[in-house]
Amino acid sequence: MLDLLGLQSECELLEATVPAGIRFSGSLQLPPAKSEYEAIAELSEIAKENRILKSFLGQGYHGCITPPVIQRNILENPAWYTAYTPYQAEIAQGRLEALLNFQTMVTDLTGLDVANASLLDEGTAAAEAIAMASAANKVPGADTIFVDAECHPQTVAIVQTRAEALGIKVVVGDPGSCHFDGTVFAILLQVPGTSGILLDFEALAIRAHAGGALVIAAADPLALTLIRPPGEWGADIAVGSTQRFGVPMGFGGPHAAYMATRDSLKRLMPGRLVGVSKDAQGRSAYRLSLQTREQHIRRDKATSNICTAQVLLAVMASMYAVYHGPTGLRAIARRVHCLAQVLANGLVKLGYQLRPGAFFDTVAVRLSASERNAWIEKACAAGINLRALPDGVALTVDECTGTADLLAVLKTAGAGDSASLDGLLAEVSFEDGPIEKRTSAYLLHPVFNLYHTETEMLRYMRSLEAKDLSLVHSMIPLGSCTMKLNSTSEMLPVSWPQFAQMHPFCPPDQAVGYARMCAQLEQWLAEITGFARVSLEPNAGSQGEYAGLLAIRGYHRSRGDIHRDVCLIPTSAHGTNPASAVMAGMRVVSVACLDDGDIDVADLRAKATLHAENLAALMVTYPSTHGVFEEGIREICELIHQHGAQVYMDGANMNAQVGLCRPGDFGADVCHLNLHKTFCIPHGGGGPGVGPIGVASHLAPFLPSHVPGSAVGAVSAAPYGSASILVIPWMYLRMMGSAGLVAATTLAILNANYIATRLDAFFPILFKGRSGRVAHECILDLRGFKKTTAEDVAKRLMDFGFHSPTLSWPVVGTLMVEPTESESLAELDRFCEAMIAIQHEMVAVENGEMDPLNNPLKNAPHPAVVVCSDTWERPYSREQAAFPSPWVKERKFWPAVGRIDNVWGDRNLFCSCVPLEA
Amino acid sequence: MLDLLGLQSECELLEATVPAGIRFSGSLQLPPAKSEYEAIAELSEIAKENRILKSFLGQGYHGCITPPVIQRNILENPAWYTAYTPYQAEIAQGRLEALLNFQTMVTDLTGLDVANASLLDEGTAAAEAIAMASAANKVPGADTIFVDAECHPQTVAIVQTRAEALGIKVVVGDPGSCHFDGTVFAILLQVPGTSGILLDFEALAIRAHAGGALVIAAADPLALTLIRPPGEWGADIAVGSTQRFGVPMGFGGPHAAYMATRDSLKRLMPGRLVGVSKDAQGRSAYRLSLQTREQHIRRDKATSNICTAQVLLAVMASMYAVYHGPTGLRAIARRVHCLAQVLANGLVKLGYQLRPGAFFDTVAVRLSASERNAWIEKACAAGINLRALPDGVALTVDECTGTADLLAVLKTAGAGDSASLDGLLAEVSFEDGPIEKRTSAYLLHPVFNLYHTETEMLRYMRSLEAKDLSLVHSMIPLGSCTMKLNSTSEMLPVSWPQFAQMHPFCPPDQAVGYARMCAQLEQWLAEITGFARVSLEPNAGSQGEYAGLLAIRGYHRSRGDIHRDVCLIPTSAHGTNPASAVMAGMRVVSVACLDDGDIDVADLRAKATLHAENLAALMVTYPSTHGVFEEGIREICELIHQHGAQVYMDGANMNAQVGLCRPGDFGADVCHLNLHKTFCIPHGGGGPGVGPIGVASHLAPFLPSHVPGSAVGAVSAAPYGSASILVIPWMYLRMMGSAGLVAATTLAILNANYIATRLDAFFPILFKGRSGRVAHECILDLRGFKKTTAEDVAKRLMDFGFHSPTLSWPVVGTLMVEPTESESLAELDRFCEAMIAIQHEMVAVENGEMDPLNNPLKNAPHPAVVVCSDTWERPYSREQAAFPSPWVKERKFWPAVGRIDNVWGDRNLFCSCVPLEA
Repeated sequence: MLDLLGLQSECELLEATVPAGIRFSGSLQLPPAKSEYEAIAELSEIAKENRILKSFLGQGYHGCITPPVIQRNILENPAWYTAYTPYQAEIAQGRLEALLNFQTMVTDLTGLDVANASLLDEGTAAAEAIAMASAANKVPGADTIFVDAECHPQTVAIVQTRAEALGIKVVVGDPGSCHFDGTVFAILLQVPGTSGILLDFEALAIRAHAGGALVIAAADPLALTLIRPPGEWGADIAVGSTQRFGVPMGFGGPHAAYMATRDSLKRLMPGRLVGVSKDAQGRSAYRLSLQTREQHIRRDKATSNICTAQVLLAVMASMYAVYHGPTGLRAIARRVHCLAQVLANGLVKLGYQLRPGAFFDTVAVRLSASERNAWIEKACAAGINLRALPDGVALTVDECTGTADLLAVLKTAGAGDSASLDGLLAEVSFEDGPIEKRTSAYLLHPVFNLYHTETEMLRYMRSLEAKDLSLVHSMIPLGSCTMKLNSTSEMLPVSWPQFAQMHPFCPPDQAVGYARMCAQLEQWLAEITGFARVSLEPNAGSQGEYAGLLAIRGYHRSRGDIHRDVCLIPTSAHGTNPASAVMAGMRVVSVACLDDGDIDVADLRAKATLHAENLAALMVTYPSTHGVFEEGIREICELIHQHGAQVYMDGANMNAQVGLCRPGDFGADVCHLNLHKTFCIPHGGGGPGVGPIGVASHLAPFLPSHVPGSAVGAVSAAPYGSASILVIPWMYLRMMGSAGLVAATTLAILNANYIATRLDAFFPILFKGRSGRVAHECILDLRGFKKTTAEDVAKRLMDFGFHSPTLSWPVVGTLMVEPTESESLAELDRFCEAMIAIQHEMVAVENGEMDPLNNPLKNAPHPAVVVCSDTWERPYSREQAAFPSPWVKERKFWPAVGRIDNVWGDRNLFCSCVPLEA
Repeated sequence: MLDLLGLQSECELLEATVPAGIRFSGSLQLPPAKSEYEAIAELSEIAKENRILKSFLGQGYHGCITPPVIQRNILENPAWYTAYTPYQAEIAQGRLEALLNFQTMVTDLTGLDVANASLLDEGTAAAEAIAMASAANKVPGADTIFVDAECHPQTVAIVQTRAEALGIKVVVGDPGSCHFDGTVFAILLQVPGTSGILLDFEALAIRAHAGGALVIAAADPLALTLIRPPGEWGADIAVGSTQRFGVPMGFGGPHAAYMATRDSLKRLMPGRLVGVSKDAQGRSAYRLSLQTREQHIRRDKATSNICTAQVLLAVMASMYAVYHGPTGLRAIARRVHCLAQVLANGLVKLGYQLRPGAFFDTVAVRLSASERNAWIEKACAAGINLRALPDGVALTVDECTGTADLLAVLKTAGAGDSASLDGLLAEVSFEDGPIEKRTSAYLLHPVFNLYHTETEMLRYMRSLEAKDLSLVHSMIPLGSCTMKLNSTSEMLPVSWPQFAQMHPFCPPDQAVGYARMCAQLEQWLAEITGFARVSLEPNAGSQGEYAGLLAIRGYHRSRGDIHRDVCLIPTSAHGTNPASAVMAGMRVVSVACLDDGDIDVADLRAKATLHAENLAALMVTYPSTHGVFEEGIREICELIHQHGAQVYMDGANMNAQVGLCRPGDFGADVCHLNLHKTFCIPHGGGGPGVGPIGVASHLAPFLPSHVPGSAVGAVSAAPYGSASILVIPWMYLRMMGSAGLVAATTLAILNANYIATRLDAFFPILFKGRSGRVAHECILDLRGFKKTTAEDVAKRLMDFGFHSPTLSWPVVGTLMVEPTESESLAELDRFCEAMIAIQHEMVAVENGEMDPLNNPLKNAPHPAVVVCSDTWERPYSREQAAFPSPWVKERKFWPAVGRIDNVWGDRNLFCSCVPLEA
């Protein structure tokens, strides 16, 4: 490979690519690399420091049973977890169908019209709903969100953080006391309330609407199988967590939150929306709808950076609904409710005073502080976690609760050793209960009623899997998305009970293993980035950006610089950058880029000077989004600092830097990391991501925090965000060590330059550094071809069994390729050969040797039903369509559908399961 | 479904199928069914009673590291473990390739010419090698096998059991003392010896051959990467265990044993042999070679019942070699050897006396009995297991041994608390050692040199997986093979360390969980079969038959009835029956069957009377191999008992009986069970199987046993056979309970009768019971069609995405269908529709509407490269070829190759990896 590049050594390559001025000369202070076997053993010892108690904690996190068939065939299956976001819909029909099932499940359960394909967590979903309601409400002066005091505390915390930056006023209180006087643009309710109470909000909703306010309900989806859904009593937006639909608690995440709304509000809804369209042959096909809403396309209009979803977890939750069906879900809910009744009755018999009112799964007991603490301590000693309320204790029943657990908790409440549940069980009925008010049917679609045996379920999931291309098939050479190896040894601990079954708000002395693992990971990431502190709380890259800017904001405000609100962003930046800035209460000012992709330093200097007084931050991606290590980065940072502002570095391209240079060393003040890119968390088919931030010491007090009174507050629902998957980067770093990381980064750069060199003669490489080298990715310029689009190339690559590189970003008419260090030379060569073969087809089209419209590029991809059809009237052969290179025959991946009509899909928006007759 | 059958209830169905005279009227005394979640929790508690110590025990079982990518994507992947034996080669190319890799690995490592695709365990492989050598040796009077005293004790025990029944004399001793005087037909050597010693056997081999004896080497495959292989110093046959190639010890199994031999002996070799042939388009394709050797075809010639293999484990071991390659394997072996040297040197420095001589991984220390026991006890207290030898202690190093483990064991040997390995490590070199005598290269084929990154390995395994049809795709309706649901909750515990990492010969007080689990399983199986005792030792159905007949043999001999050696076997019996009888030293006498498939009782009576004096047993399958509950079974058993003989019942069809009738109640004395059929152990693509036997109380003393001095001796290498997968039936029975089992059996019978009723008009059902019903399977008679064979139908079913039913057994020209209770009505209907569509094609061929040779049946299956080829000159359409029913388009499974030429493959036998240029 070096030969092809005309180089003698990897050293020479690095000298030619990474500016000497920023090279990290030392060795990262990380523990020496361990083997897979040793690292697993070490983490296993750490895991033992987590103690799993029986959780009655509730508060939005519930023990649940992951059906083993889903655990093994989705959560633990690389074919599902290594897939990318389904932008290339023709080779992603499997998870798109699963997400459509998710959306249908949510609309059915909430009684609303349209749902998105998941959000990050319930807390951020509630904050997004508030932003959406704020955007929908045009009444002048309506600047207040009223938050039900029965909302989960972590939701209230996130709402407060978000609202503060956006200038929205938050009032927390009893919904009955809310006056809809024109200042309140929406009210956020929790159903059931965090202490368990179930109220009828219909009258309130009427009052709210009359006062010009929208109604947002944060609702438990399991409860919705029994109670009247929000859409039926007047809510305009519903949000919630689908965690208890078979997704382990994992000390806080990852899980899929949901959002649903009325049809009239759908175009304001954040998040991804899967819709139904048709393919070139007119067959029904799924795709991401309304993608123009995603800010990477309309960056200037961004109001939210939620293009992140939790696909893997949404798929699991949807499969849980598919497996159990409406009858099964109702049975689970009834059982939970009845056991809660048993518990309540048992406590009353023991003389406890319950909070009055209906409940679903949570019983609240009124106690003095000393009584409360004594009981909690006693329960803890008996292996049971109870939740402390200000005025007592809450006990939440879940799918995992058994009668033995109820008996055990009643004994800690004073029941005798010989106590039995027999009498209590006889008193409640599984058939009816005070709260079963839902009369409308749900989940009537066949998909929720066909696969209720494990055999059928397995085959259904496998049939979807077979439609999706993932890293188990071939490289996914996405620029800036770093689709690298997600090794099994990194993934195994995610399933360990000591990590999977921990409640995020359990007593800290039970989560010593988590604390230790997270502390080590924070320290390692700080060392790698050259920063003083790292926060693992942000549970997506976009969240990391947001948290990073909040830190900068907090810093300025702490110094009295309240006016500093201008954020400079190069025009080449990823679309989440301006979105995050807006969310953090900043004004976005664009900075021009030069033709070579570098920041236009003259323009930067001019803008910085112009806004010197109010300058808050520069957001910069390094290496640049054009795939080059800019020479002047250190000077750029100094320039910003001279104006009293802070430098935010987007860590999307960290895979080019690890071990070679450190943002903290060359001038960045804060940087987010995509643990799902550089640090091996798999993309999950479109989430989860994890986006911690590193900060210099002066920003450390402004890291996000769940501790009351902290400067910035919470940004994610759980203190460690998506805690359970932090074991993945932990394992990665533990097995790599300093030398391994340097080797990986070097190889990533070598692989990119190998591809750039091989393909330059066919597709000019758009941006190169000083020495004619790229960093860890390269941009192929296709604009010389007038009759074939980049999209055609992307679709044609599917016929070769490849996922397309990043399409038309950051420059329209280009493909951005990032091979990563994980791909072998053989795979790089196969990809290059496919690209060269495609180039030959493109040349033939340009020359007129091939029809400009009826050719393998325009007609790509070619599904089996097309190639095997009885009629074939195309000017090229079937073999050229399906097996364009000889090696394709050995491992043919068949696209499930032909080219999908995006325009038709957006014009005929349909976002639920397709009726069987269609 | 009952409507179609014209029945009112399931009760009515059972009355019409199961003879009233044998119906079990009670309820099985099993613990009440638990949910998946509860059963997992209960087994988890039992698992905690197993204690994992660091094993230095050796003796053929070694700690090893299963590469996580192999663990997750093979061992824990239903696409691999639910597949059937690769008889239908066109839809089994993936595992056939993996098995060919296994064979190549074995021939390369052993230096012999040809290897089979695995055997059950090293002990039985050695016994098979002896039987093979005995058959090869034609010298009159050569009736003795000389067994190296350095063979593993369990191997010696199995050889003695086998030899006794076959009349072979066994002499155990020092090989140097063996006189090849014409009485010795072969010598069995262990390399390295069980106490670790490595000897050069070249001179001995010359002596043996000169004396007309064959040389059999039981050799450790890891050692063979460093030492001169058996084929190079004169061994004629090599056997061994590939367990340490990444397969967990699992308290004894399952693992894949291997056997290799010289070309001249290959046609005597037992076991399956994967070979290379070509398909209808002339492309290279894999298949099972020399199938005519399998006794189900040439039953009267059977000398062995080894048609069982350990496919899943052989695949794992082969993938371990593919992943590590020759360099990686050598590195692992060198490290093991060097650590053993460190250990030896350390012990010598502490003043211990080692046994002299070269060694690979095992160090033997000479000690008095009291010194030995004291050390073992001290080590045990320190978490280390050492092996007791008669004259000391043996310590075996393996892939999992770390320097910390060596230090720990040296401390138990008297090294001070401050001892360090530094000096010892400096003394040994990884580059060379006294034993590195191998000069020949191995594993040069590209497959062992291409996939050494996890990404490449994952894609290779997935590309093979994609070629194999398994239960994840569709039903596999094999008659008598009961391909039912292998639920994930049953499979999960197999991977738990407390089951996977136990050494079969660890101190019993460390394996209390295993003992408890096995005792419960034995008790439940005894209850289900109506017997007094159950042995779990036989690790395949064939082994169960053999063990059952040995019990009968032992019983007769204990009563002085040494002459009782006639075994009556109906002509309809499965081919393993006569093979087992021969191996148990019995003479086979066939009993005729009536046209309706029932035993010809008149003939039975005649044969029983004729052989009354010498009658040992009747082997009978129930329900019969023709799929019918014979009415007269009770009378048949009584008839046999009247003649002083015993009834052996083949449990292959137990899935029709569980909960409805019990063999022990209606007259059987012994019965084997296929835990891999009725009790949910998956077929693993052709193994592992497990075949415990149940016996009436008078036969209990004659169950197989590893206890020295037991009546019958050992039949498997480990006391509980394939212990780790016994958790699967344990989970199954724990979750089913009595009522669940009855429901399952009833549904299995209903499903079979549903298919029989739907298809009877298209393919006459060959055998029915008194009421016109079948049991749990039915035979479709295709003999009315003269121009289409059953094989054509089997291949055509592949185009529909189905695996064929059992082909031409027990009647040529038929298909035997067993749907099992696991298949839903929708799947049964799809299968029936496929069969009906095929029948229409068959009618068209018969009528002359279709060409008799060039039609979709004769040309089936149709791989994608054929259907998508540019030329298509067939009288039927591409769509008819590939998508013969509309629903096939939704879940198309593409056969990887066209019809394979079996005759060509057998005539041009080639059983190693195909050179890349081919």
